[in-house]
Amino acid sequence: MSEFVHVAVDAMGGDNAPSEIVKGSVNALNSCPNLKVTFTGKEELVKAELEKLKYPADRVQILNCTEVIAMAEPPVDAIRTKKDSSIVKGLRLVKDGECDAFVTAGSTGAALAGGQLLVGRIKGIERPPLAPLMPTAKGPVLLIDCGANMDPRPSMLLQFAQMGSIYMRNMTGVEKPRVGLVNVGTEEEKGNELAKQAHQLLKDCPDINFVGNIEAREIPEGAVDVAVTDAFTGNAILKMYEGVAKVILHELKGALMSSFVSKIGALMIKPALKGMIKTFDASEYGGAPMLGLKGLVVKAHGNSKEAEIEHALEQCITFKEKQINELFRSEMKLDELASARRAKKNTEE
Amino acid sequence: MSEFVHVAVDAMGGDNAPSEIVKGSVNALNSCPNLKVTFTGKEELVKAELEKLKYPADRVQILNCTEVIAMAEPPVDAIRTKKDSSIVKGLRLVKDGECDAFVTAGSTGAALAGGQLLVGRIKGIERPPLAPLMPTAKGPVLLIDCGANMDPRPSMLLQFAQMGSIYMRNMTGVEKPRVGLVNVGTEEEKGNELAKQAHQLLKDCPDINFVGNIEAREIPEGAVDVAVTDAFTGNAILKMYEGVAKVILHELKGALMSSFVSKIGALMIKPALKGMIKTFDASEYGGAPMLGLKGLVVKAHGNSKEAEIEHALEQCITFKEKQINELFRSEMKLDELASARRAKKNTEE
Repeated sequence: MSEFVHVAVDAMGGDNAPSEIVKGSVNALNSCPNLKVTFTGKEELVKAELEKLKYPADRVQILNCTEVIAMAEPPVDAIRTKKDSSIVKGLRLVKDGECDAFVTAGSTGAALAGGQLLVGRIKGIERPPLAPLMPTAKGPVLLIDCGANMDPRPSMLLQFAQMGSIYMRNMTGVEKPRVGLVNVGTEEEKGNELAKQAHQLLKDCPDINFVGNIEAREIPEGAVDVAVTDAFTGNAILKMYEGVAKVILHELKGALMSSFVSKIGALMIKPALKGMIKTFDASEYGGAPMLGLKGLVVKAHGNSKEAEIEHALEQCITFKEKQINELFRSEMKLDELASARRAKKNTEE
Repeated sequence: MSEFVHVAVDAMGGDNAPSEIVKGSVNALNSCPNLKVTFTGKEELVKAELEKLKYPADRVQILNCTEVIAMAEPPVDAIRTKKDSSIVKGLRLVKDGECDAFVTAGSTGAALAGGQLLVGRIKGIERPPLAPLMPTAKGPVLLIDCGANMDPRPSMLLQFAQMGSIYMRNMTGVEKPRVGLVNVGTEEEKGNELAKQAHQLLKDCPDINFVGNIEAREIPEGAVDVAVTDAFTGNAILKMYEGVAKVILHELKGALMSSFVSKIGALMIKPALKGMIKTFDASEYGGAPMLGLKGLVVKAHGNSKEAEIEHALEQCITFKEKQINELFRSEMKLDELASARRAKKNTEE
């Protein structure tokens, strides 16, 4: 590929900004010759970090921002008022076509609100979902939606399934991604109203490999490649994943340190444990893409270290090279969908 | 207590019926002198199991049933047509006041539907929730609702919070149970419509110790005693709990068996691991109560062994001795609530 992929990176977002953000970006720059990065953030801070590292200066820019959006700020207000913040300026670079993607480890709410308000949806997409990759016993699963749409319509879940399917096929190389609808049981008449209606739409869609309803317990087992749900349930699933794993590993550590014999045993199993913990390391996947926007926005974990940022940037490169947004447009027939919706609206008026 | 607690037990329900069901019940009978049990199920099968054991024959009855409701049967149909099944006959014993409670490890759907249709709600209760106790790092948490109400109204979540609070205070002795509303963030304006409206109701209720919104990750950490949510989200939380724990322990086992050294290490940490796994053993709690019925229905896990059935029966004894249903009526002012609702309905007509 000779074409450059130009990514805006929020140098101020997350617990380890700017140091780990800049380090991870420089690693990606050094390993990907077609990557360009524009850091948004306080110029002197970014410069100070860059000076510690070896990096290709001709592919790095800094866009100075005087403001930072804090994690707890009301997202929509923050996006509207803090026009000189690293998130707003980064998203604007994508909107204006100067950058292909934006990566942030900052406020999820601001990234989501800003993605919709500033970057904007692809015509025909009802709502852009946030879709993290979660580790499972059999490789990653895309959990879609996980933060953007709290009370979605069934038709939105259909689009999530389609986008998730295209994303996984192209980004991870799974030929026919198995799509499951998160529900309380496998029978199609089960669930709340949303799940019942969405089930019918997914069943009737010829473009996806719909395997039916799945129970949440099947997600960590790796039963599907794409798990479709509303953002409220998706958030609970993601948080339970993190919470249960954390508590079990904490208790395990406590158990291992509880006696002299168990301490010796712990030393002996350490290498095996490390391998296991790596299987469940979400930072490998480089953050959650927000799909269906005119450009890509990637939300990395708030506690991201350099590795996750590097992988987030690699994700942006693959996303552009595989032309995922063009595939959304053509495979989901988004232009026709938008025209049909416009026509329907005109008739109603 | 001189008064007997009379419990109907579904001898046919679950993967290990009737053997483990009968064994667990006999253990409870032998340790609790004020317990009476009526087994519902195939008489000759129950008799054969009883003959293997030492039990107080004067406190045991068998109600012969010719039918069994299978796990996969549509619940409402099954309840309506299989009148001679162990579940229908057990629930009828509670409805008719012959038994105080019914314990089953059989079909959750049939138990839920039958609880509502046959036993019936306490006047003033909008909907009876299913509320399993889940193990956490700091003792059990009551997850309410987890199976009964897929699209609840906000006012139902308020009643779940009140019932959960009374249950935990009396059953586990926590003086002021901390009640949390499951949501995507701690700020009160967060969440879907249901969560936003429920938050206001919970905040304004003086009878509960409402600690605000909690994220799902805080549940396994033991941040609250009562976690309030709709059944769809509750089900996802419960299933993720089981699924993640199962996958991690499976991977851990694989890691421990991966080399000679790790195998030796595994032997050395085995006692410590066993203690840890016991911390997360849900069978200690004896199944999930369905609250707000004119009597108690307890749904034990489908794979229950004797210990869980024994604990389920102990739960029924405490529930009656502590007069939980009477506390629901008085503390939640259910009679006034029912009258007010009737008056409102009359005015509207």
